[in-house]
Amino acid sequence: MTLGELCRQDRDRQLAWLEDYLRIPSISSSPEHAEEVRRCGRFSVSEMERIGLEHGQLLETGGHPVAYADWLHAPNAPTVLVYGHYDVQPVDPLDLWDSPPFDPRIRDRDLYARGAVDDKGQVLMHWAAIEALLKLHGRLPLNLKLLIEGEEEIGSPHLDAFIQERLDLLRADVAVISDTAMYGHGIPSLCYGLRGLTYLQIDVHGPNSDLHSGSFGGAVANPCNALAALLSRLKDDAGRILIPGFYDDVRPLSAAERTELAKLPFDEVAYRTAIGVDELVGEPDCTPLERLWARPTLDVNGIWGGFQGAGAKTIIPAEAHAKVSCRLVPDQDPERIARLVEDYVRAITPAGVRVEVRQLHGGRPSITPIDHPATLAAKRALERAFEKEVVFMREGGSIPVVATFDSLLHVPTVLLGVGLPDEHAHAPNERLNLDNFYRGILAVAYLWQELASSPIA
Amino acid sequence: MTLGELCRQDRDRQLAWLEDYLRIPSISSSPEHAEEVRRCGRFSVSEMERIGLEHGQLLETGGHPVAYADWLHAPNAPTVLVYGHYDVQPVDPLDLWDSPPFDPRIRDRDLYARGAVDDKGQVLMHWAAIEALLKLHGRLPLNLKLLIEGEEEIGSPHLDAFIQERLDLLRADVAVISDTAMYGHGIPSLCYGLRGLTYLQIDVHGPNSDLHSGSFGGAVANPCNALAALLSRLKDDAGRILIPGFYDDVRPLSAAERTELAKLPFDEVAYRTAIGVDELVGEPDCTPLERLWARPTLDVNGIWGGFQGAGAKTIIPAEAHAKVSCRLVPDQDPERIARLVEDYVRAITPAGVRVEVRQLHGGRPSITPIDHPATLAAKRALERAFEKEVVFMREGGSIPVVATFDSLLHVPTVLLGVGLPDEHAHAPNERLNLDNFYRGILAVAYLWQELASSPIA
Repeated sequence: MTLGELCRQDRDRQLAWLEDYLRIPSISSSPEHAEEVRRCGRFSVSEMERIGLEHGQLLETGGHPVAYADWLHAPNAPTVLVYGHYDVQPVDPLDLWDSPPFDPRIRDRDLYARGAVDDKGQVLMHWAAIEALLKLHGRLPLNLKLLIEGEEEIGSPHLDAFIQERLDLLRADVAVISDTAMYGHGIPSLCYGLRGLTYLQIDVHGPNSDLHSGSFGGAVANPCNALAALLSRLKDDAGRILIPGFYDDVRPLSAAERTELAKLPFDEVAYRTAIGVDELVGEPDCTPLERLWARPTLDVNGIWGGFQGAGAKTIIPAEAHAKVSCRLVPDQDPERIARLVEDYVRAITPAGVRVEVRQLHGGRPSITPIDHPATLAAKRALERAFEKEVVFMREGGSIPVVATFDSLLHVPTVLLGVGLPDEHAHAPNERLNLDNFYRGILAVAYLWQELASSPIA
Repeated sequence: MTLGELCRQDRDRQLAWLEDYLRIPSISSSPEHAEEVRRCGRFSVSEMERIGLEHGQLLETGGHPVAYADWLHAPNAPTVLVYGHYDVQPVDPLDLWDSPPFDPRIRDRDLYARGAVDDKGQVLMHWAAIEALLKLHGRLPLNLKLLIEGEEEIGSPHLDAFIQERLDLLRADVAVISDTAMYGHGIPSLCYGLRGLTYLQIDVHGPNSDLHSGSFGGAVANPCNALAALLSRLKDDAGRILIPGFYDDVRPLSAAERTELAKLPFDEVAYRTAIGVDELVGEPDCTPLERLWARPTLDVNGIWGGFQGAGAKTIIPAEAHAKVSCRLVPDQDPERIARLVEDYVRAITPAGVRVEVRQLHGGRPSITPIDHPATLAAKRALERAFEKEVVFMREGGSIPVVATFDSLLHVPTVLLGVGLPDEHAHAPNERLNLDNFYRGILAVAYLWQELASSPIA
């Protein structure tokens, strides 16, 4: 029997298995659900042991525990670290759900439940693939370590420390995460790059209290005007960031990447309509997808100062503030960018005000090149399972654990996700397309086979 | 007996009279004090009748009433409209007063009470001057109309309509207001110019909801960045406003005015220290006082948009807002300036956002030239009473009733005030220097004599 035949024959059981997993209301942000979260962690461990993984254990983190198991009997093959999470988002507003969030239902070819796509369905693809391979061959083609955490939806507050304390346990050659969406319906995709982040607060201080704008206006610097002047000098009208050195470490897109990204359908009218803007902006020599994925940004995330109420109050405010963040691309360093912004802001501070710049948050960008052996292995696995050419994409946001795997474990990450952009992760009526689920099981199984013979170790 | 001798002999009685006036807690903003406010209005009418004025009446406004009286028996002489107010500010925080606010006390040469300088003391100067002139000569040298309102401290909400409905009753050749402060201790001053105001709100609209700055940053215009860009283009680093046509109607300072203003002592270090700034800013070819009094401004009074909390939230905000106001100088028109700002903001709106500009408030600037016969008459009167050269000054803020007198009654206004900048108007321990009070009575009496022979009718 082939893997494909075995998996096809097991589909009903795989679905019932996932439904059991989805019935556990493992809402990590809700203190009342703490025991259910832990029960879901125990369920994860016992299922991993049942299918033949070893060393199954619930590892304490200080918060919700990590479910861990491994299979390490392929001494000459690479080791893969699989990351997923068993916790889910809250379900409010409950009245917008067409069926109860923890009572899975099938409509058309979709399974509806909280956690269906994010991330229990995609975790279970891995278990089902392992189960099938062990059933068929009695062994796996490489070594696997599964780390399924229970705090992803609350920002993984304990994960970095957890990994730092278990570098030996988690040592691997490559990490695989199935927690992302494909580019669109029927488009199997490999996301190979994520942007990083530098997040700053700029505080502008003027007079020691709000002043009457009639009595003092004209001779006293206004912190709101000064802040506007500062912010306007960080970026030009074409979207080019003016901070000296900002682009020094930007790795340009290769010709091959540009070719791949150009293959992606992008309906600009639909995109603009969905968000309600008349035109897109940004660097004119880049396509919108290049701007969104492969170019750094500078956005003011918030601004405030002075009078914000109804009507008119005539003051020169004592201070003004802005939250400013830069999305970063490889190989920009968040700390270096923070210093460059701060130095530049100091250099262009207008007369009559004092400015403070503080870094609030930082995260490194990441990339696993499209010609990396692990990326190529994943491409072949996905194409075999989905019977379609795979497209390469990037993400404009960040997945912090990818940066952690890079910095602490020094491993590249493959993002093999089979969600769809409209499957309502984090929203009412979360769902998972079952065709993608079943093909995803095959894709994962093929991935182990492909990686076993790839030069990644 | 001369006027000076008569007034000197009456001082104790004048002081007791003012103390009676100050004992009435006429707090116009406090509903619980409404009856006291009205009692104070009645007191004002009866005192004006007692000293020999006629047609004394409490005129309804829809709010607190106006106390009115006149003397119109000088058919060939000019008519002066005297404006003052009998209402006072609230007294909180009460525990910061060294003596009860409505129990007048004398310490050194100051009389402490709420309303002492703002404005009962300065209203009573007029009554005492009238009383003295009528006692001495049995008549006044010109026609007088006194309008003492009860809502100045709450923004005179009914005054414009009141005046509009009584244009005949209030017709005059010049208005006199004693409700301002001298430039400093021992410096009798004439404030001859006030700035006006155009107050706008700018609303910048971007996407139809806040967007994830990772997923959308780089291709979608950010309303906060756009607002900063807009605001930064309204004024250059030297403080010069960049809106085309903005300065068209600015009446330049005459050589005589510059000379007068240059006479005023201005301790820049003390000024900066008091407000806590390291340097003053503004147009380099103007002195600080010229910038504060005789040049228009553009200040952002408030700004807000996006995330203002602690920590980091990575959004492209859906909108951003600013309150922006311009102080105006003669002969700028608030409506025209509002249109110029709006047109310019539309012209420079960055791509990808929509902008709305709304005018929230406007007030005309005003000036009574330093060579106007009424100004010269007031100068001579003040110099005779204070035995010192008078300085000319302006004010950076607005006194709305002056603009109303100009636009509805078409009369120039003389601001003959004898307060001091540190007499705590609107604050605990309000006081009035008694020497200035007694000299002020003389100055007002001399002013009627001077105006009677001036070519102002």
